[in-house]
Amino acid sequence: MNGTMKALVKSGKHKGAEIQQVEIPSIGDREVLIKVKATSICGTDVHIYNWDEWSQSRVHPPYVFGHEFAGEVVETGEKVTKVAVGDYVSAETHIVCGHCPQCLTGKYHICENTQIIGVDRDGCFAEYVALPEDNMWKNPEDMPVEIASVQEPMGNAVHTVLSGDVVGKSVAVIGCGPIGMMAVGVAKAAGASQVIAFDLNDYRLDLASQMGATTIVNSAKENPVERVKELTEGHGVDVVCEMSGHPKAINQGFKMVTNGGRVSILSLPTKPVEVDITDDIVFKGITVQGITGRKMFETWQQVSRLLDSKQVDVSPMITHHFPLEDFEKGFELMNEGKCGKVVLHP
Amino acid sequence: MNGTMKALVKSGKHKGAEIQQVEIPSIGDREVLIKVKATSICGTDVHIYNWDEWSQSRVHPPYVFGHEFAGEVVETGEKVTKVAVGDYVSAETHIVCGHCPQCLTGKYHICENTQIIGVDRDGCFAEYVALPEDNMWKNPEDMPVEIASVQEPMGNAVHTVLSGDVVGKSVAVIGCGPIGMMAVGVAKAAGASQVIAFDLNDYRLDLASQMGATTIVNSAKENPVERVKELTEGHGVDVVCEMSGHPKAINQGFKMVTNGGRVSILSLPTKPVEVDITDDIVFKGITVQGITGRKMFETWQQVSRLLDSKQVDVSPMITHHFPLEDFEKGFELMNEGKCGKVVLHP
Amino acid sequence: MNGTMKALVKSGKHKGAEIQQVEIPSIGDREVLIKVKATSICGTDVHIYNWDEWSQSRVHPPYVFGHEFAGEVVETGEKVTKVAVGDYVSAETHIVCGHCPQCLTGKYHICENTQIIGVDRDGCFAEYVALPEDNMWKNPEDMPVEIASVQEPMGNAVHTVLSGDVVGKSVAVIGCGPIGMMAVGVAKAAGASQVIAFDLNDYRLDLASQMGATTIVNSAKENPVERVKELTEGHGVDVVCEMSGHPKAINQGFKMVTNGGRVSILSLPTKPVEVDITDDIVFKGITVQGITGRKMFETWQQVSRLLDSKQVDVSPMITHHFPLEDFEKGFELMNEGKCGKVVLHP
Amino acid sequence: MNGTMKALVKSGKHKGAEIQQVEIPSIGDREVLIKVKATSICGTDVHIYNWDEWSQSRVHPPYVFGHEFAGEVVETGEKVTKVAVGDYVSAETHIVCGHCPQCLTGKYHICENTQIIGVDRDGCFAEYVALPEDNMWKNPEDMPVEIASVQEPMGNAVHTVLSGDVVGKSVAVIGCGPIGMMAVGVAKAAGASQVIAFDLNDYRLDLASQMGATTIVNSAKENPVERVKELTEGHGVDVVCEMSGHPKAINQGFKMVTNGGRVSILSLPTKPVEVDITDDIVFKGITVQGITGRKMFETWQQVSRLLDSKQVDVSPMITHHFPLEDFEKGFELMNEGKCGKVVLHP
Repeated sequence: MNGTMKALVKSGKHKGAEIQQVEIPSIGDREVLIKVKATSICGTDVHIYNWDEWSQSRVHPPYVFGHEFAGEVVETGEKVTKVAVGDYVSAETHIVCGHCPQCLTGKYHICENTQIIGVDRDGCFAEYVALPEDNMWKNPEDMPVEIASVQEPMGNAVHTVLSGDVVGKSVAVIGCGPIGMMAVGVAKAAGASQVIAFDLNDYRLDLASQMGATTIVNSAKENPVERVKELTEGHGVDVVCEMSGHPKAINQGFKMVTNGGRVSILSLPTKPVEVDITDDIVFKGITVQGITGRKMFETWQQVSRLLDSKQVDVSPMITHHFPLEDFEKGFELMNEGKCGKVVLHP
Repeated sequence: MNGTMKALVKSGKHKGAEIQQVEIPSIGDREVLIKVKATSICGTDVHIYNWDEWSQSRVHPPYVFGHEFAGEVVETGEKVTKVAVGDYVSAETHIVCGHCPQCLTGKYHICENTQIIGVDRDGCFAEYVALPEDNMWKNPEDMPVEIASVQEPMGNAVHTVLSGDVVGKSVAVIGCGPIGMMAVGVAKAAGASQVIAFDLNDYRLDLASQMGATTIVNSAKENPVERVKELTEGHGVDVVCEMSGHPKAINQGFKMVTNGGRVSILSLPTKPVEVDITDDIVFKGITVQGITGRKMFETWQQVSRLLDSKQVDVSPMITHHFPLEDFEKGFELMNEGKCGKVVLHP
Repeated sequence: MNGTMKALVKSGKHKGAEIQQVEIPSIGDREVLIKVKATSICGTDVHIYNWDEWSQSRVHPPYVFGHEFAGEVVETGEKVTKVAVGDYVSAETHIVCGHCPQCLTGKYHICENTQIIGVDRDGCFAEYVALPEDNMWKNPEDMPVEIASVQEPMGNAVHTVLSGDVVGKSVAVIGCGPIGMMAVGVAKAAGASQVIAFDLNDYRLDLASQMGATTIVNSAKENPVERVKELTEGHGVDVVCEMSGHPKAINQGFKMVTNGGRVSILSLPTKPVEVDITDDIVFKGITVQGITGRKMFETWQQVSRLLDSKQVDVSPMITHHFPLEDFEKGFELMNEGKCGKVVLHP
Repeated sequence: MNGTMKALVKSGKHKGAEIQQVEIPSIGDREVLIKVKATSICGTDVHIYNWDEWSQSRVHPPYVFGHEFAGEVVETGEKVTKVAVGDYVSAETHIVCGHCPQCLTGKYHICENTQIIGVDRDGCFAEYVALPEDNMWKNPEDMPVEIASVQEPMGNAVHTVLSGDVVGKSVAVIGCGPIGMMAVGVAKAAGASQVIAFDLNDYRLDLASQMGATTIVNSAKENPVERVKELTEGHGVDVVCEMSGHPKAINQGFKMVTNGGRVSILSLPTKPVEVDITDDIVFKGITVQGITGRKMFETWQQVSRLLDSKQVDVSPMITHHFPLEDFEKGFELMNEGKCGKVVLHP
């Protein structure tokens, strides 16, 4: 498709972004062009918007950022066989190589050569986005676009929570940004008996509560480790989902988990963290898991089923909608922590 | 049994230990008294002997230390049903409570109320030792006493290596003390394609080589992470068994493991360790396991079968034998790293 | 405790049973005596009552049968340490040896030397029952006695359903006797997206529906395999829980499971069953699991948590209460399939 | 590539096959053409050659059969990116759809729409064979062609044996055709303590012995179940790999496995088999697995590493080599059971 389109461009090596008219992306033989119906703001986008240390070392302006979306296929490359024009889709945002040892054994989410849309190539804060057909996920016709858009981050939540069994278990979710909120809902739906949510922000804790947390704890006001002891007869929680990235909270997670428990870390602390390996990992005999991306497409299948069956209702945490042009309002809310998920409509 | 016996006593809050005549221990209704035929020195005993920070905070002299042994049952409590006088036994050295959530679900090795013989109560550097019948492991008649004695630390090696699959995989063993040496032999027997052993001590690396390492690396002379890259086509090893306890070596372990790999930590670093959680755990999607003790008695069964079938031959790493009275020679060798396993004969 | 008690005795090698005064059982050093508050009728008890082929080959009248119960500890053997007089308990009904390879590795539920109360020794259809302390499970003070009594069969349901993951999956429960009904509730609580219940009896299907089945299918009126295809876009269910024992239903289970799925069998067909191993097991790459008893005490812990947290409500399927003397009414209802669980009060 | 080639054609609906000149296959955009260097005869090919019931219902003569091979890429379709002309390759022989629920979750080996080369489309008993690039597996330069050719059936053996842990375990291999022989070698390399091989044919048992069996049992001369009891202190084997397809042998497998053990079935019995589900599966709490194909490409990676590292040496079981023209000698040997693997050279 020729012509130009409206896009939110990370235009330079500084804070902010701007709406520009740019060329509609051209597609390769095995790629498709998608008209974006809704796109949502991820924490990663906020890092890029704020031009923090991580984004300075990783992304190369000018380019279009954003990676969560739902849309309609409007053009397909010559060799595309998996989707057709008119299909209603979302997409896995990690583009993988297919030939490293991880890909060869089905662990695509930890491909050694991963490229991420909106980070390493143009993304979806735009009217159109181009992607390989292998990354497509077909949505049910009746799924609202904002729900379809948040399947990608919900996949992170599902991947983290379901990296082990939670049925009848006590689960701590540390850090209640949008993925943490969804993790609460997923843990409840997956049979956890207790879901204890931790954050410093009461607004977000309230949303965690709406998503099904059995207890919410403001870690600035209560001692999280003590609170867990009270709630678990002194034994600690079975599972910790670490989504805060704060060294102190991470160490609280290690202290609150029971012997033999699981600590699954999705967050990305900005610096190395001091860990008491001897007392907190070895003597307790725990398992620590690093979680990245979504299993392709096992995690997408789980997300899809949990949404279809209404086992998880993500609507409470989708708090704001704006036209793409009002992106600044969205990023401001995200920086203030005064929102769940913010959806932009191009 | 009344009377006195010869024992190696940690007599005071200072370096060293001394041979004394002490009372033969009395036994409870569910305990047994064992005549010790052979006992071996563990790194933990060296900590206690040296009176380091950890032992100052944990043990209460005067008492008999030592926990690895083989011997013969000479007396049984009134209610004992599992062993009989004359049985040739070794013993699990962790005494567990049986009623915490971990014990109730069969994870005795991470019992919240564990007591360790030779640490929290009298041990086996003596002519006799008393233990609960539940801790007994019957040895085959034809097993040499020094082999029977090292089953306990071999259990640590087996527990670490076999906490995940190693068939056809590359395994790094970091730290080649006696348990590391045995881990090398276990990994080979369990089907690892490559077993790469790391240490700073060439004497111990030579023993690792005799135990079956496919490559040995002196980390003082070669860059361990680079060496692993060369040996694995740039991908890293599938499994790291961390047995050194050194912060630098631990971090090398995290750097050398492949995406999706496993790092199993048995060592006990003396202080918190800085870990690059983001790059080394999360983005790589690895699993970190804390390993303590031995699964009761799954690990003992594995040890027993690997020895019976001659799949693992531990004899190369049993390098020294002394009468109990010559204990100082043994501890000196351990402190100098000029030995594999040292066996004492009471 | 001396004296006699009221008990329901399988008095002879013929159909039926009778209320008799028998001696209160004496207890061993590690046993406890329990005053029975409630006891429930299991399918196994019906087999014994009806004096069918299986019971003729297994049990030795005269003896007291029954194994599901809740009660209060009224006497403890000299060496008992785990429970005390006054404790409110239920019990694991399999008495295991502790020394076979299965017991040694924590798989007590498949002990080679299992004895079952009410089958191989006197049971709980009585005012008092004697059991080893190791079999005790302490109940929360506020748990109704009839709920506490059905924890044992609910353990079978939990063991079957949770022998693999069910989150976001489709689960078929074939055979809706009381354990099947509870399996429905457990699968829902554990995150199954679809729970399809099969039986020939509409009364029981209605109870399965009350327990949370998303679809009920009367296999006499609809083709179960076709119905599953419709409900799963032609792919089949992910998990089959076989609780009917009927050869035809078992084979329907094999036909309705998706490639790579799981068939967990708790039922006990009375004769060998013809299975199409090639098409239904090998080419489909499925896993078939035999399920017996409850994991000690992992399953009990799961049951307890699912009940405490109100994730599973078993009250709809506890349909009848009688004094012990009216046992005949209970067995009649069971034989007619006109009940869920029948509770007897001694 | 235009022109004709020599090929072994299943020419009609009757026993036998014949050498013909046929057109060299043309390739699609994502396919490659391979010059066959060596091809080996599988049991499946013998079924087709003999024109048995199964082949009558499945294959459609005239066509080229055969599926195990090694060769060199001589032409690539326009869109091929994974291999290049000159590459030395073998191939996964199952062509999968990529979009069924199994493929979407990485379980390609149980794709609902599998096509098999040499069965559902032209195979490799020929000078050239055409295949999708996705099916290619690159071989090490120095691997002999006959070894490279048997990687595919060795993959079946690896998939079966390694579907669970075998370290320190006792493994029974029932049926010592070529895959059974390789299963023996794989089990030994993977750390099994005992590998007991069963067959009715002493020639094949001798080859199983050369592959590393610790005990061989001629089931016509000794009672297999009794023999296992003697060898396992009465407990039974931990793992059964069923590769015979005989109902009697299958039931012996169920009888010889220990409580909680694993029975992995690769064989394809020609009719439904009567199984004592109650006593042999449920009460024993065993797991039965259907095994088909090879995990793509996890199994290939395992095969490759076990061969590269010399952990498994398959050369003893490659017993015969013939030019393609002498195919009749090969099929005769296979029908007589007087061979291990027969390799044909086009």
